[in-house]
Amino acid sequence: MSRIAYVDGVYRPHREAAVHVEDRGYQFADGVYEVIAVRRGELLDERLHMQRLRRSLAELRIEGAIADRPLGLVLREVVRRNGVVNGIVYLQITRGAAPRDHAFPKTARHVLVVTARRNRQPNPKLDEEGIAVITIPDIRWQRCDIKTISLVANVLGKQQAREAGAYEAWMVDAAGYITEGTSTNAWIVTGDNLVVTRAADHAILNGVTRLALIDIIRREGYGFAERPFTVQEAKAAREAFLTSTTSDVLPVVSIDGAIVANGVPGSLSRALRAAYISHAEGI
Amino acid sequence: MSRIAYVDGVYRPHREAAVHVEDRGYQFADGVYEVIAVRRGELLDERLHMQRLRRSLAELRIEGAIADRPLGLVLREVVRRNGVVNGIVYLQITRGAAPRDHAFPKTARHVLVVTARRNRQPNPKLDEEGIAVITIPDIRWQRCDIKTISLVANVLGKQQAREAGAYEAWMVDAAGYITEGTSTNAWIVTGDNLVVTRAADHAILNGVTRLALIDIIRREGYGFAERPFTVQEAKAAREAFLTSTTSDVLPVVSIDGAIVANGVPGSLSRALRAAYISHAEGI
Repeated sequence: MSRIAYVDGVYRPHREAAVHVEDRGYQFADGVYEVIAVRRGELLDERLHMQRLRRSLAELRIEGAIADRPLGLVLREVVRRNGVVNGIVYLQITRGAAPRDHAFPKTARHVLVVTARRNRQPNPKLDEEGIAVITIPDIRWQRCDIKTISLVANVLGKQQAREAGAYEAWMVDAAGYITEGTSTNAWIVTGDNLVVTRAADHAILNGVTRLALIDIIRREGYGFAERPFTVQEAKAAREAFLTSTTSDVLPVVSIDGAIVANGVPGSLSRALRAAYISHAEGI
Repeated sequence: MSRIAYVDGVYRPHREAAVHVEDRGYQFADGVYEVIAVRRGELLDERLHMQRLRRSLAELRIEGAIADRPLGLVLREVVRRNGVVNGIVYLQITRGAAPRDHAFPKTARHVLVVTARRNRQPNPKLDEEGIAVITIPDIRWQRCDIKTISLVANVLGKQQAREAGAYEAWMVDAAGYITEGTSTNAWIVTGDNLVVTRAADHAILNGVTRLALIDIIRREGYGFAERPFTVQEAKAAREAFLTSTTSDVLPVVSIDGAIVANGVPGSLSRALRAAYISHAEGI
């Protein structure tokens, strides 16, 4: 748990970290966020997170937000004050507080909140045994490429997964194609060893772990395609896995209760996980 | 502006009204709200708002929230402390504060925030001259019947309307039908004097003003149909108008720059506005 939080210019004890009730993040979900992995005290793939943050801010037209360099200093200070060596740092930027009105306020100033926490006790069973996913309709809005805090559909989907005994819910668009998980990107390995994940269109969040893994896949020379895949194709795939900042690369061994491949993490999934962890640890 | 706000059990000066940064309303838009009109110090159509609030809470499975009767007392106390005779009272209930994780927390307790404010100076030109709307694609999620604070798409739409010099943006679904405005319901009057508004499906918020006006329409014996209508039908309509708690009934005289009817508020729109205001004022 975060002990110290940064809230709009001030470092505060976590329990006193508060924002105004008319912050537009609270009344309109009018803000964006990033979750950055901390490894050995360093921010992992910081540049990719900053690029995505700038894009999200631009899409919502939240202007005048803190620049990369001072933001990087705040992130590091929150990491340091919380004694985080391995964990995550969370940042959120909203359009700020103003009397409630849907349209952009003329006078509000953006609000930045940063928290950090150590890794929860990792469950080594997850990557050794693989995890289960369910599939659900993707009912979210049509701009999931923007990393907004407008996450209530993701919340309901994740909860549905948990209650089904699954780690994640993969969401399915109207055409029957999997978009992504509620907080992870979705991948399969086809019968001819092609690694497949959906292209970064408006229906998915272009994950930083996704981008880092694509770099690794290309560098290592694995076959790779960015294209949509159906639930049927995923269930019949040789392997499946998911990626995210907090999950790294996790093998998927069951989809809607149907065993993927032979029910154990696939060899390519394990190799990619190992390669990603080497990247993350700077080895 | 609200001078006193109710925040999680405590009445506070508005400027000190704050919630924790890990309130799930702030990180996940995991909450619901209502805006209730105050007329002559009374809550207008309170029962309808409470019914909708209970439905929204049930759909998000936010449990254990304050019951109608004590909630009504809080609403009235906030209205009283802010000296509101004519205005609005705003309430928001979130799933509460918990360490960030998409799935429902096991221990969080819901958080209730209530604010109130007097009517801003009404602009009599709006109902005398009518207002302009634009149409935009409806990119929101597929459960707009739940009154969540997940409103970033509505924010972007309203801003687009303002920048186009319009009062509201009417959103259009994939089939070409108008769903609703970003904070209002959409209505037309057809050539044979039928009042038409979309049925309360998952694509729209079932407005309390909408419900109250349907009652009036039926009582007064006007022709009425709940069915979707296209942008083309709206532009060719005899009249058009919108409804909401803060707008009452407002005539629409232009859609995407095209004049509706002869460019002045229609007679049926004006009659319905007058009947609604009589209802609101308890006449």
